[in-house]
Amino acid sequence: MSKLAVAFLLLSSVCCAQAPSGFEPASTNVWGAEYPRVDATGRAEFRVKAPDATKVQVDFWGNPKLDMVKQPDGFWTVTSASLVPGFHYYSLVVDGAEVNDPGSHTFFGGGKDASAIEVPEAGSSYYLPQDVPHGAVREIWYFSKVTGTWRHALVYTPPEYDSQSKTRYPVLYLQHGGGEDETGWIKQGHANFILDNLIAGKAAKPMIVVMAYGYARHAGQPDPDMGGKPFGSPDMMKAMQQMAQAFEDDLTQVLVPYVDSNFRTISDRDHRAMAGLSMGGMQTFQVTFDHLDMFSYIGGFSGAAGQLMLGNKALDPKTDFNGAMADPAEFAKKVHLLWLGVGTEEPAMMHAGIARMHSSLDDAKIQHIYYESPGTSHEWQTWRRDLKDFAPRLFQAGTAKP
Amino acid sequence: MSKLAVAFLLLSSVCCAQAPSGFEPASTNVWGAEYPRVDATGRAEFRVKAPDATKVQVDFWGNPKLDMVKQPDGFWTVTSASLVPGFHYYSLVVDGAEVNDPGSHTFFGGGKDASAIEVPEAGSSYYLPQDVPHGAVREIWYFSKVTGTWRHALVYTPPEYDSQSKTRYPVLYLQHGGGEDETGWIKQGHANFILDNLIAGKAAKPMIVVMAYGYARHAGQPDPDMGGKPFGSPDMMKAMQQMAQAFEDDLTQVLVPYVDSNFRTISDRDHRAMAGLSMGGMQTFQVTFDHLDMFSYIGGFSGAAGQLMLGNKALDPKTDFNGAMADPAEFAKKVHLLWLGVGTEEPAMMHAGIARMHSSLDDAKIQHIYYESPGTSHEWQTWRRDLKDFAPRLFQAGTAKP
Repeated sequence: MSKLAVAFLLLSSVCCAQAPSGFEPASTNVWGAEYPRVDATGRAEFRVKAPDATKVQVDFWGNPKLDMVKQPDGFWTVTSASLVPGFHYYSLVVDGAEVNDPGSHTFFGGGKDASAIEVPEAGSSYYLPQDVPHGAVREIWYFSKVTGTWRHALVYTPPEYDSQSKTRYPVLYLQHGGGEDETGWIKQGHANFILDNLIAGKAAKPMIVVMAYGYARHAGQPDPDMGGKPFGSPDMMKAMQQMAQAFEDDLTQVLVPYVDSNFRTISDRDHRAMAGLSMGGMQTFQVTFDHLDMFSYIGGFSGAAGQLMLGNKALDPKTDFNGAMADPAEFAKKVHLLWLGVGTEEPAMMHAGIARMHSSLDDAKIQHIYYESPGTSHEWQTWRRDLKDFAPRLFQAGTAKP
Repeated sequence: MSKLAVAFLLLSSVCCAQAPSGFEPASTNVWGAEYPRVDATGRAEFRVKAPDATKVQVDFWGNPKLDMVKQPDGFWTVTSASLVPGFHYYSLVVDGAEVNDPGSHTFFGGGKDASAIEVPEAGSSYYLPQDVPHGAVREIWYFSKVTGTWRHALVYTPPEYDSQSKTRYPVLYLQHGGGEDETGWIKQGHANFILDNLIAGKAAKPMIVVMAYGYARHAGQPDPDMGGKPFGSPDMMKAMQQMAQAFEDDLTQVLVPYVDSNFRTISDRDHRAMAGLSMGGMQTFQVTFDHLDMFSYIGGFSGAAGQLMLGNKALDPKTDFNGAMADPAEFAKKVHLLWLGVGTEEPAMMHAGIARMHSSLDDAKIQHIYYESPGTSHEWQTWRRDLKDFAPRLFQAGTAKP
């Protein structure tokens, strides 16, 4: 069959979504795909064609897999129990092969373009497009002397950025998690809609948001050989530290200057924030505490400095974070915001690590904000809520010397 | 396993691409994926894990499928013959389920987020990022009164758009093909790099490029029921016409005014062009000939008016295109550019249809450009070349009354 005919047939095949009562196609679906679909209680129905397979499952990445049931027409189907509202990655497992659901759009997570399903949260619209002025999200490409490669980033500019051509704006650097990429905060997180809605409601100041690609290697640095190395082994930690350093150097030496040259930013530390989720939270702590001359607002969304986050050790305010907290009063003057968040349902190790960091900060009388997202795990609904709480606190302080 | 651990492990698993001599990971791969990979002759090697499958194939959408061979480690592998340089969609077929390759990024085509492999073209860099000033690609969201929904579009702004804040620019509306979406011209086509390079070389005028979502339904219009309707049947044609009309109304009544309000455009017909590939070419002919008061440059990339494109009938210059060609001299004054392109290896019906339209235009002495892309089929390398030939011809004419 010619591709033309394929295109026409697909065009026809994507035109006929017919949802039975109660279940509606997920908002994360491709145009017209009838499955997966969700109902008001958060149950999800899946359906996929695999006529010659002997076993097909739905895998929500870590939870027990759902066995699908083969129908006489060669399709496999299953309905889940009620899911927590929000965004959930999933895979299909077809005779041992972990693959995407053709009915779902893909979202970069787990190191690949992965399927996902959005379960609406009743009464929540803060992360959905509303009839308010919209900012734009720009794709930029810049050549990095640090990595020796072209790099891609996304930049949110607030409503009126183009029309108010003399106004300069503060900047939030906002990082994705491990296995995700620079598209995550828009595609999965809806950061642009969250900001649009906060700005329209005068809850947050208009700001630029920069979302960088979180992986980097120094130019000429060979690929680390980590195949088969156990998690936490010295070789693996060394490779991760190299990557983290290359990312820090790219961000601080190339990307920040690029953004300050190419966007109307206010280019001082009082008007520069950084936050990130999970791995991006670890990167945020490393980058900001290494460069307090550049950043004064710090957010860790289900992420903190590595060993603290994992609960391996307690915070030592005298030495941790390059000793920036040794004098709590000085710290509060210098760092306008230190923000920590975690979901109540996150894996115990992570929840305990971040909660412990929070109490250590309290004990040491280090000014900070601690937020718990009720009922959510290490997932995007937590991080959407984090951003909704974090962004309004930015760029409200007076200026202070580093 | 917790998602945190998953994220860390993935982070490690994506760090270790080790290409053996001759083959390199494809540029379309996700970070660090070793497969698929290509060699200098255009051969592609595929590898996928499917330990319990009984049959796994690589499917280039219409060509004979490649049977993969199971290895003792549960992975399946195969090496293709040399592929035509450019961008090729493909699927894996695992026991009858058509799925993506986790090693490949996805690209919206065939009505889903699909795998693809880029085969480099020796000596061609016009569609690759170069060390030249780069434009930005912006995501915009606008509410359409025509469809009653939020719609997403991409907008390329040329280098210096932000710094030359008084300059206004002409606009090209550039449409994807059937089964693709508004992301295609950037992700698959590299339209931004093509424009960057042409503008840097002074071969094309700086312009804004708007890429709209090519599917639409009028607000309140029910989904057309086309399930099981044969290709070309009256019901299916009617549904496609309804969609085409809704798209035309959205583009001309909502998107063009939105772009003219939100970007520094030159908002007259002499500075507005439209082109599209395949289905997008059909839409271009419909929209522009219905609205010659709005457009004066017209491009069909492997696409033309439907029946002409498919070779079902010859061009009738007196009546086709709303009679706009009835007087060739008037037409040449009004339409600054009518451009047709097709790949030499496209399916015979399509190639013949467009070539026949070209000779009919010649016979009727209708001024136009006809371009054949050597050695390429109904695929992105054809359309990249089309854009490279088409864009330099835009906005060079003097002004003329419609």
